[in-house]
Amino acid sequence: MPTSTAARRARLRVCMRESGLDALLVTDLLNVRYLTGFTGSNAALVVHADDDGAEDRTIVCTDGRYLIQVAEQVPDLRAEIARASAARLVELAAAWGAAKLGFESHVVTFDQHAAWEVSAPTIELVRAPGLVEQLRMVKDEGEIELLRRACAAADDALAALIAGGGLRPGRTEREVGRELESLMLDHGADGISFETIVATGANSAVPHHRPTSAVLQSGDFVKLDFGAQIGGYHSDMTRTYVLESASQWQRDIYDLVARAQAAGRDALVPGAEVAAVDAAARSVIEDAGHGDLFLHGLGHGVGLEIHEAPGIGKLGAGTLLCGAAVTVEPGVYFSGRGGVRIEDTLVVREQGPELLTLTSKDFAIV
Amino acid sequence: MPTSTAARRARLRVCMRESGLDALLVTDLLNVRYLTGFTGSNAALVVHADDDGAEDRTIVCTDGRYLIQVAEQVPDLRAEIARASAARLVELAAAWGAAKLGFESHVVTFDQHAAWEVSAPTIELVRAPGLVEQLRMVKDEGEIELLRRACAAADDALAALIAGGGLRPGRTEREVGRELESLMLDHGADGISFETIVATGANSAVPHHRPTSAVLQSGDFVKLDFGAQIGGYHSDMTRTYVLESASQWQRDIYDLVARAQAAGRDALVPGAEVAAVDAAARSVIEDAGHGDLFLHGLGHGVGLEIHEAPGIGKLGAGTLLCGAAVTVEPGVYFSGRGGVRIEDTLVVREQGPELLTLTSKDFAIV
Repeated sequence: MPTSTAARRARLRVCMRESGLDALLVTDLLNVRYLTGFTGSNAALVVHADDDGAEDRTIVCTDGRYLIQVAEQVPDLRAEIARASAARLVELAAAWGAAKLGFESHVVTFDQHAAWEVSAPTIELVRAPGLVEQLRMVKDEGEIELLRRACAAADDALAALIAGGGLRPGRTEREVGRELESLMLDHGADGISFETIVATGANSAVPHHRPTSAVLQSGDFVKLDFGAQIGGYHSDMTRTYVLESASQWQRDIYDLVARAQAAGRDALVPGAEVAAVDAAARSVIEDAGHGDLFLHGLGHGVGLEIHEAPGIGKLGAGTLLCGAAVTVEPGVYFSGRGGVRIEDTLVVREQGPELLTLTSKDFAIV
Repeated sequence: MPTSTAARRARLRVCMRESGLDALLVTDLLNVRYLTGFTGSNAALVVHADDDGAEDRTIVCTDGRYLIQVAEQVPDLRAEIARASAARLVELAAAWGAAKLGFESHVVTFDQHAAWEVSAPTIELVRAPGLVEQLRMVKDEGEIELLRRACAAADDALAALIAGGGLRPGRTEREVGRELESLMLDHGADGISFETIVATGANSAVPHHRPTSAVLQSGDFVKLDFGAQIGGYHSDMTRTYVLESASQWQRDIYDLVARAQAAGRDALVPGAEVAAVDAAARSVIEDAGHGDLFLHGLGHGVGLEIHEAPGIGKLGAGTLLCGAAVTVEPGVYFSGRGGVRIEDTLVVREQGPELLTLTSKDFAIV
């Protein structure tokens, strides 16, 4: 059963008490959404730390445009209506006599903080960066189901693109990108996760190439990096194909990246150091003498944001938690010639990672 | 001739000297783009105030991914390469001995500022919110040309939608929205300005309705609010049509909104108080007894952002400057029944406003 937003708030209160906070002001819109279900474009939330009466003094605030929406989406909390939503909640917390009010210092601007200091001089504003983001790292089953559906929409769209002959010499990167995005919407996506990457020939060696009018040609690598969004959750997947006929160097580099990617996936176990997960994949590429051609980190968390905690890279700190949703995406890029990246979205599980992006990763000529 | 980014930096230096700053740290990505032309996703800029040698000590910073791009897009400035781009420029400014370094306190987070205070204790960090945004209010002819092209792409897409029978009973709001967005790309847009609003029947009474599976029906109002993006500049336009046959109340409300919109456009003269521009349109609707059904401000500035300064509303402060690009978009909304909004993008000119969205605003049954 999906975890309720009330259960998420209860988990947050445990962290808040460990930090010595009386209350936490949440102003990041995705964090408000995570903790309440509210999706409007103006929102703030104050969460009271004590379990005793905590929900009565946990208040969401938005402006008049969202009067009906907030009542429907957040039936279990008191809603305040004010245009300056965060400022209103700071006032309320001061009126309760909260001494230590945590705020999201990693997103709150210098000017916002300065204004609250003036408007609520009795309150101590305490830096509390990333508290909710820490919770969001571990996905509940409701979130994983949305990720699964988002990944399925991307899988289905790619299958339809290929079945319809959409990947063929003569088309431009931009045409392929638009068709793939359109197919994701046809297959149930609410939107796309990010601007689709379609990179053909030498462009495939550019890790984050934007689609151009470059024309797909026989013998090219075509790299597709794309994702679908459902219920606010993002999928992320990369596949690289060869058009019509492949050279031996293309088979070799593909095989290398595929082995590195498999090693990275195998390293996704609860408690693993993220730097060790990166190393598991990277060492495969380094052993082949191409370590300098793997230009980026191995992966990242994915959820309400396309990039979120944990980062999985060489210099990453921390360990993987059970329930984390992450990407594994090694790449090898020969500048001016071509590159391969293979990427999946997976969930870290006790019994081994659950693969959410199910499209085959076998070497394929299309 | 389009204004060069060097000329924009020279204008900025005048403002900086008025504010007593030795240098300004620009971290808002759109402000960096405006002042340098750089479009990467990691960038900061430090602008030195003195004209004497100022360009030598005006430095853009980005990370290694953009090594080639920054050299191509910003050939006239020194480029630093560092992942923590803003922090690197604070260090450099400290090394020059800059005493007062302005920073964009309306976008800089509390944590960023705190880190700079530690890393550069010799420098006085001075709040300088909105300096570049003030300059951006007045568009140069290069910017206006991009806005003109973005508006033309939207005009052309709407014409193609209607000519192709795209607005007809039986289609869903979502289908119409997707086709209109696709047509904007076909007509030269780099992207869309924002998620297209398609609102049929009673949904047209919701100012910012998101497209649903609701089906267009004969006799419905259909409200379309959409825009195209070219070269980073956004167009914004709303048209409201009636499907197949119109009632008298629909003609009456349309006529009222059209008269209010014309009054708003006529009020766009250099030096006009923005509140007076709002009032010029609003009073037409109030005089008809429907002031309470016009639920939002009259318009907003448009440029590198879809919503930017100046805001044109009841409580707005300040005056319109020659060269400002703004929308004029009154609406009247009968809840549960239907609503009309008519919106153009225009440029404030000495000789009267220049209309950029050229689609007819005559009452039309499609």
